[in-house]
Amino acid sequence: MTERLVVVGGDAAGMSAAAQARRRREPDELEIVAFERGAHTSYAACGIPYFVGDLVPTAERLVARSPEEHRRRGIDVRTRHEVTAVDVDRRVVTVLDLDAGTEHDQPYDRLVIATGARPRRPPIPGIDAAGVFGVRDLATGIAVRAAVDAADDRRAVVVGAGYIGLEMAEALVRRGFEVTVVEAAVSPMGTLDPDMGEIVAGAMRDLGIRLHLGEAVERIDVDGHGAVSAVVTAGGPIPAGLVVLGLGVRPDGSLAAGAGLDVGDSGGIVVDDHQRTSAEGVYAAGDCVEVFHRISRRPVAVALGTHANKQGRVVGINATGGDAAFPGVLGTAVSQICDLEVARTGLGEREAAEVGFDAEAVSITSSTRAGYYPGAAEIRVKLVVERSTGRLLGGQIVGREGAAKRIDVVAAALWNEMTVDEVMSMDLSYAPPFSPVWDPVQVAARAAVSRLGRE
Amino acid sequence: MTERLVVVGGDAAGMSAAAQARRRREPDELEIVAFERGAHTSYAACGIPYFVGDLVPTAERLVARSPEEHRRRGIDVRTRHEVTAVDVDRRVVTVLDLDAGTEHDQPYDRLVIATGARPRRPPIPGIDAAGVFGVRDLATGIAVRAAVDAADDRRAVVVGAGYIGLEMAEALVRRGFEVTVVEAAVSPMGTLDPDMGEIVAGAMRDLGIRLHLGEAVERIDVDGHGAVSAVVTAGGPIPAGLVVLGLGVRPDGSLAAGAGLDVGDSGGIVVDDHQRTSAEGVYAAGDCVEVFHRISRRPVAVALGTHANKQGRVVGINATGGDAAFPGVLGTAVSQICDLEVARTGLGEREAAEVGFDAEAVSITSSTRAGYYPGAAEIRVKLVVERSTGRLLGGQIVGREGAAKRIDVVAAALWNEMTVDEVMSMDLSYAPPFSPVWDPVQVAARAAVSRLGRE
Repeated sequence: MTERLVVVGGDAAGMSAAAQARRRREPDELEIVAFERGAHTSYAACGIPYFVGDLVPTAERLVARSPEEHRRRGIDVRTRHEVTAVDVDRRVVTVLDLDAGTEHDQPYDRLVIATGARPRRPPIPGIDAAGVFGVRDLATGIAVRAAVDAADDRRAVVVGAGYIGLEMAEALVRRGFEVTVVEAAVSPMGTLDPDMGEIVAGAMRDLGIRLHLGEAVERIDVDGHGAVSAVVTAGGPIPAGLVVLGLGVRPDGSLAAGAGLDVGDSGGIVVDDHQRTSAEGVYAAGDCVEVFHRISRRPVAVALGTHANKQGRVVGINATGGDAAFPGVLGTAVSQICDLEVARTGLGEREAAEVGFDAEAVSITSSTRAGYYPGAAEIRVKLVVERSTGRLLGGQIVGREGAAKRIDVVAAALWNEMTVDEVMSMDLSYAPPFSPVWDPVQVAARAAVSRLGRE
Repeated sequence: MTERLVVVGGDAAGMSAAAQARRRREPDELEIVAFERGAHTSYAACGIPYFVGDLVPTAERLVARSPEEHRRRGIDVRTRHEVTAVDVDRRVVTVLDLDAGTEHDQPYDRLVIATGARPRRPPIPGIDAAGVFGVRDLATGIAVRAAVDAADDRRAVVVGAGYIGLEMAEALVRRGFEVTVVEAAVSPMGTLDPDMGEIVAGAMRDLGIRLHLGEAVERIDVDGHGAVSAVVTAGGPIPAGLVVLGLGVRPDGSLAAGAGLDVGDSGGIVVDDHQRTSAEGVYAAGDCVEVFHRISRRPVAVALGTHANKQGRVVGINATGGDAAFPGVLGTAVSQICDLEVARTGLGEREAAEVGFDAEAVSITSSTRAGYYPGAAEIRVKLVVERSTGRLLGGQIVGREGAAKRIDVVAAALWNEMTVDEVMSMDLSYAPPFSPVWDPVQVAARAAVSRLGRE
């Protein structure tokens, strides 16, 4: 008898799950139906700032696999269909056809919830004005791009100086806007420690971006046509015809919560390491779930395509009788702000203290290449280390070309619970175009070994 | 009472040992004397091809610390002094002053042998002709550069297509030479598997380098003035006014062997993980020693500045009463041939078989950035995996900008004896300018998981 796998959400997580399940089961064994509220599937949400900035010319370039391509591969994708309720006892979802306005029930044997995340929209007066954008999905990305293309008023405000905020700020500068970034915290990039965030702030100012740090948005002023005219902070109004919200996202666990599934404090659906929710036969993956942080050992919500894809794969295997696990995250992230590369993994100084580690932080400045090799650029590496054991807890890197991807060595070290002594000794690659004889990560590890009196 | 540490060899290993010891002991506790046969200390031998190619304008740029700078830091460096014998029972070395032609005895309490490596010079007829260069040290690097600057005949042959051979070939192309590389093996870069070496061969040909693969050098023809005129293989004579030997190096264990210390089959001095030789109070470090390969678990000789520096640090600590270990190597290496980046770590397919592993190799082609992001370039990743356990045994990467340093993640995985399943799951950094959502290394790991039927 043919079973049915129903997928809620056509994003990377949902469609990775569907595709992996399809590879493992023939259509006569398993029917796969995927409902997507929007018109697009399997697109790279992380690429939206580059589309807005015209580094990527068309939205289609961001689509890894269209609904038609999925259908050709035996996945029954239904776009413009929103799942409004799940009955986990009857194993049925309620589906609203957004174009027809009709609703129907869809039974399932196994269910995958991939409802993603929503941009944070704090209840600021005026936040729903025309010209204020939160970037949720490809459709809103296309809307921002259209607004940017059409704008007469080339003044923009980005609210929030996290990854997305800064990437959008750079995109707007690239498109000829005069850009102000407003951030309530005193340094940009809240996932970095302030000392590293300072370097990012400098690079943004060099790019001509005005930074209003330590200023919360009090209201958004609206003109007579209902369109945004200014963002107002304690420092006064900042005139703008376009506002982008870069305040981060929150997992969209509402459908799951409505179905009685466990949802955590982050708003993310609670899953085990097999991506199973609290209801039998129901899996969840992607930006809508909470995951295990391997260093803090706490549940966290991390909206990132790389996790979504990996979790989707795990679900596709487990929902078809296999056995795969998603072993958690480290909070690894990387971003490029013009020619400045910024990366982090594990715990920052403050996070380490919050979790209860007695930690020491060590920062060094080194070079991306041998000092004598053309193009050698400065790189700053910060490591957070447990004092008593020398165990690495986190790392942050800021620098020019060739700096950021080194965070992966720190991530691999964290993954394996290495001490700084071990990191210092590792056999990393060396040649003058790529590194000084001591790789910058190892220069930092060596400084930590010395600081902690471990030699 | 003041003790005396004597260092034989002023290269990176010897001077790292001296500098580390100096940091730990005051001059009134420990006298440090370093003898160097040449005129230079602490120079980056790996940088010589870039000096020859004029990417680095002067030889001085390659010197990290001159004899004068070491002396200012309390290390009694004596250049142009060659240690010709060691008496480990009496704890005395015999020193020849190369300029004065006089010899004297120098007692020591602790001794560090850092005699480096010698370029291989097979007994080919004509190999000692003028214009035939092996690159041993900065002095020979300066000699090659002078010959290149002065050469009327702009035809050069590089014998051997290993890292140094290819870097020298590129340098000579950059200097306007017509370059032929002769290699006895059928593919360049013997440290890569042939399928990956093929890609390097293609890039070299694109650069205008003529490649004679599978051809051993039979003799070197010499003109009436004793200068090289051609390199002769079974394919006939290749006219050249300049020949560079890139046949690799062999540890220079001759001084140690003469003193009765244990020397291995590689020619390298046998040391334990504290860099102690078989004689009490005698340490060795750098290109002159054999080290432990963490995957093959065999002793190997690897001439590389990064190991020399790390080992020097270990010696400096242990020779001053501390306790530090050098935990071995993975055989990690990286090189740039024009805009092609080449990297490897661990065991290749053939090496894995030689060591007795039942291994499977998996290769994939991916992209250095998200496919839609400008500048995305092809990257080829090969992983060698133990069939029964899924344990990673080695990796090779060939690609354009941003490709090679990813080998460090493979190295970190090898260091921690990770399986491909674990590598696939790691939280590596992702953003469109740096990586597809699945990092190429993880694409390869995933392919291996699938190939081995582990999902």
